[in-house]
Amino acid sequence: RCHQHPVAMLDISFTPFCAFLGSLGLLCVALVGAWCQHWRGGFSLDGGSRTFNWHPVLMVTGLVVLYGAAALVYRVPNTWSGPKLPWKLLHGGLALGAFVLTVLGLAAVFRFHNSNGTPNMYSLHSWMGLATVLLFSCQWVAGFGAFLLPWAPSWLRQLYKPIHVFFGSTILMLSMASCVSGINEKLFFSLKNGTTQYKLLPAEAVFANTLGILILLFGVLVVGALAKPSWKRPDSDSLDSRQVLGTHW
Amino acid sequence: RCHQHPVAMLDISFTPFCAFLGSLGLLCVALVGAWCQHWRGGFSLDGGSRTFNWHPVLMVTGLVVLYGAAALVYRVPNTWSGPKLPWKLLHGGLALGAFVLTVLGLAAVFRFHNSNGTPNMYSLHSWMGLATVLLFSCQWVAGFGAFLLPWAPSWLRQLYKPIHVFFGSTILMLSMASCVSGINEKLFFSLKNGTTQYKLLPAEAVFANTLGILILLFGVLVVGALAKPSWKRPDSDSLDSRQVLGTHW
Repeated sequence: RCHQHPVAMLDISFTPFCAFLGSLGLLCVALVGAWCQHWRGGFSLDGGSRTFNWHPVLMVTGLVVLYGAAALVYRVPNTWSGPKLPWKLLHGGLALGAFVLTVLGLAAVFRFHNSNGTPNMYSLHSWMGLATVLLFSCQWVAGFGAFLLPWAPSWLRQLYKPIHVFFGSTILMLSMASCVSGINEKLFFSLKNGTTQYKLLPAEAVFANTLGILILLFGVLVVGALAKPSWKRPDSDSLDSRQVLGTHW
Repeated sequence: RCHQHPVAMLDISFTPFCAFLGSLGLLCVALVGAWCQHWRGGFSLDGGSRTFNWHPVLMVTGLVVLYGAAALVYRVPNTWSGPKLPWKLLHGGLALGAFVLTVLGLAAVFRFHNSNGTPNMYSLHSWMGLATVLLFSCQWVAGFGAFLLPWAPSWLRQLYKPIHVFFGSTILMLSMASCVSGINEKLFFSLKNGTTQYKLLPAEAVFANTLGILILLFGVLVVGALAKPSWKRPDSDSLDSRQVLGTHW
């Protein structure tokens, strides 16, 4: 045991990692809900700022936490053998749930802007966020077409799979960046006239900044887990491509 | 040729990819410089807003573009054979250059804040940015200690290498998120009283939003290139860990 290969010492177990990640994801959802409830006036559908509050809650829940869960389905060793279809349905179903929450999250901010005569789609946050959602919709539709429609040819699946995997991590990186820029911007909007300014770091600022850091931690751990070679399914692209693209090796 | 494995069709060549990425990186540096020069009054060291302007330029140049170049050194096939030391020195030297620019970029914003009585370190952008720089400093020192000091034991190098690789991509993701939240926040600060408001999307806003999107594109491509199995050096951790951690396979 003392002569174990050093890399083996780093071999984190997938199950406790997932338990930690799940708790961290739930914590992010709880914190964004608590922020909007406790400091931003709670939730409603009247088109005012309490309608806006659905935006951060739905985006963090859908585009970060549920999306992360969907992305990790194929890292669960149980999915590596037996029939693939149930796992495909789980992966696609979780991603669809994440997508629905995301679209509702977009609807919340558009409704808030339109009710208040604020233009839509001017900030870098909005450009990046919309680009993320558009990429996610393409990813879902293309994934459905290539992997769930039974008549999709095998060459198409093999061709598209590494692209789907690449965009899977990319979309999560973009949603992390969208979330933190959105929290940052919301705190500058909210913490000025009539409240303690953001730059004086009131309790709300510490709370929401901490939320932002935890969202980054969650996203980085999911992207890292997706990239970890020993957690990939044995017949993954890395093996395929190594066998095929022998000239690189 | 028609019967080529479909994954082989996706085999992008590394050299043209790097040429594209290098051009994109230079474009990001040129655009951030042009933004600060043309719309934000240029550069100086007087402690005013023209001192602040060094901050985005140095951060994009150091923590994104030069950092990305440093990260990709071991993806150049020439580094895979022959003596390793020159490539280690190149990797560490580029990273050190990126780190020096980053520290100067921090100095610029601290000097601007201190000259103007603005508190430091209150926004989520600043928390995330400082966390990124702290991780980068740990990464550089630990990388130097483990890989460049000749007396570092081999087991330490093997143990630390996957950690160094993980944090290499993580730091770049965090710097992307820091850059876009910083550009977003700067545009809200600058485009209000006396100028066309950000929400009316003046030319400067379109220009700087585009810069933000290009920074994200650059970062996503670097992280994707780092993760691409066929671009990893043949004796990389993915092979090591597969041989050692056979129970996963």
